[in-house]
Amino acid sequence: MKPVRVRVSLPAPSEFRFFSSIQSFQEIPVPAPPSKFCSQCGAPVTRRIPAGEDREREVCPVCNFIHYRNPIPVVGCVPEYKGRILLCRRAIHPRLGYWTVPAGFMELDETLEEAALRETREEACAEVRLGELFSIVDVPRAGQVHFFFRAEVVNGQFEPGVESLDVRLFAPDEIPFDSIAFRSGVIALRRYLEGPEKGLVLDAVRPGAPD
Amino acid sequence: MKPVRVRVSLPAPSEFRFFSSIQSFQEIPVPAPPSKFCSQCGAPVTRRIPAGEDREREVCPVCNFIHYRNPIPVVGCVPEYKGRILLCRRAIHPRLGYWTVPAGFMELDETLEEAALRETREEACAEVRLGELFSIVDVPRAGQVHFFFRAEVVNGQFEPGVESLDVRLFAPDEIPFDSIAFRSGVIALRRYLEGPEKGLVLDAVRPGAPD
Repeated sequence: MKPVRVRVSLPAPSEFRFFSSIQSFQEIPVPAPPSKFCSQCGAPVTRRIPAGEDREREVCPVCNFIHYRNPIPVVGCVPEYKGRILLCRRAIHPRLGYWTVPAGFMELDETLEEAALRETREEACAEVRLGELFSIVDVPRAGQVHFFFRAEVVNGQFEPGVESLDVRLFAPDEIPFDSIAFRSGVIALRRYLEGPEKGLVLDAVRPGAPD
Repeated sequence: MKPVRVRVSLPAPSEFRFFSSIQSFQEIPVPAPPSKFCSQCGAPVTRRIPAGEDREREVCPVCNFIHYRNPIPVVGCVPEYKGRILLCRRAIHPRLGYWTVPAGFMELDETLEEAALRETREEACAEVRLGELFSIVDVPRAGQVHFFFRAEVVNGQFEPGVESLDVRLFAPDEIPFDSIAFRSGVIALRRYLEGPEKGLVLDAVRPGAPD
C-alpha cells in the first residue's frame, strides 16, 4: 500500500521539442508560457515577488493581477479487453505516429474519472468501466502530473477518434514499448503489467536520472 | 483497494465568496478568471471553438494563442505526532480563522510529495515524513483536485508559519470539525480517522449533493 517512488529519466529533450497549437499531451515545454501581457487589463506585466510570497510571478503593475502558473493534471487509463490492452496511435504532434494509452489534459468542469472517460471516448471511441487509480507519474519538467486508471472496455467496440490514426488491442507481450509516445505511458503500462497487488505507485520522470 | 467515490455537498456558496489576492486555498471561484487580453501579444481575445476541439476557449485573433484553463492540484498532508493530528489556523482569506490541514497549490517545478512537504514547512514550520497518498478530493466547481498524504511529524517541532495564526496538535476526538476551513479537509480528516485499511479513496465535492 505504501507508494513507491522511482526516478525515471526522460528521453533526450530534443525528442520533445514540438509545440502543438492544440493542447495535446506534451511533456515539454510547460503547457503555458509565462505571460507577457496582463490577461485582465492588457498591460505589459513585470516579474516580481508578490507580498507574502517567496518566488517571482508575472504581476500586472496596473491592476495588480498575479498570473499564477501551476502544474496541469493529465488523466488517462489502461483499457483492457479479454486480456489485451487498447492502445491508440497518435494522429497529432508531439509524437505523431507513436502509440499511447488514451490520456489527455483534464478540463475545468470534470473529475479525474470523468476526464479519463472523456479522453477514452475521444481517442478510441470506446466506453470503459474504470477501476483503480494505480499509477501517478509526476513530470515536473513539463509542469504536469499524469494519472492512470485501470479500465475494462465495456463491449469490445472501438475505433480511431480524430486524434488517432489507429486503435488496436495488444497482448501484453506485443506492446510496442519502443514506440510508446511518452515516458509516463511506458511507466503506466509497466506498472499495469506488474498486476494490481502493489496498489497505487507514484513515479516521477526527471531528466538525467537512471532509467 | 478499489477507489470508492462518495459525493459530498459544498457548504452554501456564500461562505466561499472571497477572492484573495494571494493564491491561497480557495475552492471558489476557479483559480484563474478567463483571459480578456492575450498573455502573449496583448490583443483583446475572443471566445471560439478552436479547430479540432469541441469547446470554447479564449483565443487570440492576432497571434492565435489559445488560453487554456485547467484544474490545479492542491496538495497537503495529515501530520500525526504521538497519536495527535497537527492542524493550522488560517491567517489568510478565504476562511480566515478556520482550522486546516497543511495544504496549498502545487508549484510548476515540484512533485506532489515535494508540494506536500513545502506546504507543511510553510504553514506549520514542521518537517514530516510522508506516507501513503490516501485521499483525493475532486472539486470541479473550483477547478481543483486536492491530494492528501499521511505524514508523521519528524521531531515534534512546529510553530505557526506566516499563513497561520496558530498550529496545534489535536487528539482525534478533539478535532474541531465545525471549524475546518474546507470540505476537502473535512473529508481527508474523516478518511484519515477511518484508518489505512481502505487504501486510497477518491471523493468529490459537488454543490447540491447529499453530505
